[in-house]
Amino acid sequence: MGSLRQIYLTKTGNQSLWEVRQSTDSKPIASGHIRIQVQYSGLNFADVMMGLGMYPDAPDLPYIPGYELSGVITGLGENVSDFSVGQRVCAGSAFGGMQSSVDLPQEQVITLPSHLNLEQGASLIVSFITAYAVFCQLGRVKTGDRVLIDCGTGALGRTSIELLQHLGVDQITALTRSPEKLKYLQNMGVQGRLHQDMANPKYNKSFDMILNSQGGRSLRHDYRRLSACGRMVSIGASSLVNKGKKNIFTLLKEMWGMRGFFPITLMNDNRGVMGLNALRLFDENKLIAESLNFLKENPIFHPHVDRVFSANEVNEALSYLGKGRSRGKVLLKW
Amino acid sequence: MGSLRQIYLTKTGNQSLWEVRQSTDSKPIASGHIRIQVQYSGLNFADVMMGLGMYPDAPDLPYIPGYELSGVITGLGENVSDFSVGQRVCAGSAFGGMQSSVDLPQEQVITLPSHLNLEQGASLIVSFITAYAVFCQLGRVKTGDRVLIDCGTGALGRTSIELLQHLGVDQITALTRSPEKLKYLQNMGVQGRLHQDMANPKYNKSFDMILNSQGGRSLRHDYRRLSACGRMVSIGASSLVNKGKKNIFTLLKEMWGMRGFFPITLMNDNRGVMGLNALRLFDENKLIAESLNFLKENPIFHPHVDRVFSANEVNEALSYLGKGRSRGKVLLKW
Repeated sequence: MGSLRQIYLTKTGNQSLWEVRQSTDSKPIASGHIRIQVQYSGLNFADVMMGLGMYPDAPDLPYIPGYELSGVITGLGENVSDFSVGQRVCAGSAFGGMQSSVDLPQEQVITLPSHLNLEQGASLIVSFITAYAVFCQLGRVKTGDRVLIDCGTGALGRTSIELLQHLGVDQITALTRSPEKLKYLQNMGVQGRLHQDMANPKYNKSFDMILNSQGGRSLRHDYRRLSACGRMVSIGASSLVNKGKKNIFTLLKEMWGMRGFFPITLMNDNRGVMGLNALRLFDENKLIAESLNFLKENPIFHPHVDRVFSANEVNEALSYLGKGRSRGKVLLKW
Repeated sequence: MGSLRQIYLTKTGNQSLWEVRQSTDSKPIASGHIRIQVQYSGLNFADVMMGLGMYPDAPDLPYIPGYELSGVITGLGENVSDFSVGQRVCAGSAFGGMQSSVDLPQEQVITLPSHLNLEQGASLIVSFITAYAVFCQLGRVKTGDRVLIDCGTGALGRTSIELLQHLGVDQITALTRSPEKLKYLQNMGVQGRLHQDMANPKYNKSFDMILNSQGGRSLRHDYRRLSACGRMVSIGASSLVNKGKKNIFTLLKEMWGMRGFFPITLMNDNRGVMGLNALRLFDENKLIAESLNFLKENPIFHPHVDRVFSANEVNEALSYLGKGRSRGKVLLKW
């Protein structure tokens, strides 16, 4: 209980407004829930989309966004085992992660892996759950697969690469827009390429699995790059946003790429198209338990924190993330 | 060389015409090819679609259809190893399988597995290549998956069930339209259900993988039956045919179900949709080699032959197959 700071999204659009408000937390902890004093909240591109009012799942304004966080346990509800007050944890939250204290179902919380600090802990859950669902649960990658990742240098790209390498997948191509980030990709042991170079038809039919986070027209380009029996997983639509802003021309240009894939086309091409929204997996206890178990048992992830903003600087932090200049995770510190 | 009988499709539509013609085979065997004296040609539902003029890949009329066959090697081209004259073989052919002698690339031919007779040999390749691509190469089934097969009693259904059981997948539901075929499914060790009973919403979100051969509106119904991270593979559109005939009302009713799947819908549902046309895999040497190797190393398939027609009865055989009364494979004997 006590004083609480919460970030509310109060206005969406290109002049979106995120406000820090004071409150008092006086409700008891529900059964099966854990109360966490939040140290860091992780930002995701979905927060940018939400700020622009382009996120279909968003609740009515104003609300508290936030998908992931790290912190220290300050209280336990009834029927919680395996956790104790004072433990350092990280957690996923389908909204509500942007506050200085939060109650979450125990299924969404794990103790902080010992090789990570709290900053890294707030940088891992969403990208890990996404990567694990894309490559293991939905896409089911195999050794020998040639994999293309269109967001090589972000948090999801890094986690995906670490996961794939751990699984023995060694033919990974990762994309970036900045020539200066190619070195970063090489250092991770993958083939780095520039988005703008991929138009070359030599890349057609040359990947067995593609992670597409851009959406829009890139879905059609990546589809052509699938081999026979190749599969693409679409996880977002960052291409609908132009340098962090909503722009009607960008939308019109890109939305056509989001049209449906016909079953007859898929048959004739021997290909698959899948979609993933990690947030909507939070209710799938079996899948989440499977992925969090994998995370606990495999201390192989080393999230890269790009920049930490104070919680009061939330508007600046989202503007920075939206411009696509980060390399790794952007965090808010409480 | 010598006299040759060939089946030509000369007229498509509800009054389709398949003609047996005499010819003389005098051309030499090309390098890498094997000449086979055909004993049995296997019929597939795609032949029915072809007869109706509803198969997009079909060449100009008249042509020789036929996807699979069994027989005895009568000659070898240059650069053929691992085969000898007199061997019993079975083979896949992207068209051209309906003739008494055929030359095929060695990659599409395998020696008849010793536990099968020539009838069964002509009943295996297409359904096996399809099942293997659906469940192993494209769909990538796992133990623990709950699998739904919408064509339980046909050749593909049987081969799929044998493959899945061999892979340790034990939660298989297979569908049929005839109450009297439920026993046949039970005897195969799977859960048999009637198509007409599946409308019950209790089946929604309850399968991790679905093989859909009907197409049309059933694609939308099966899509709803997918669990989170569930995947559907569409391999045909038998629902577009009404009791073996083309019918404009059936087409109109079913085609709407074949509309595209939007990436945003797939994302929100955490699902995947894939398509497979086994014939178009014949050019994919690596995938075909992988699947035929599996077939050679795993003598686990026991195709069920429903009925053998003489090659001269090809019109009757296709009419029988089109009506959907068969339980297993329909063959032509040369």
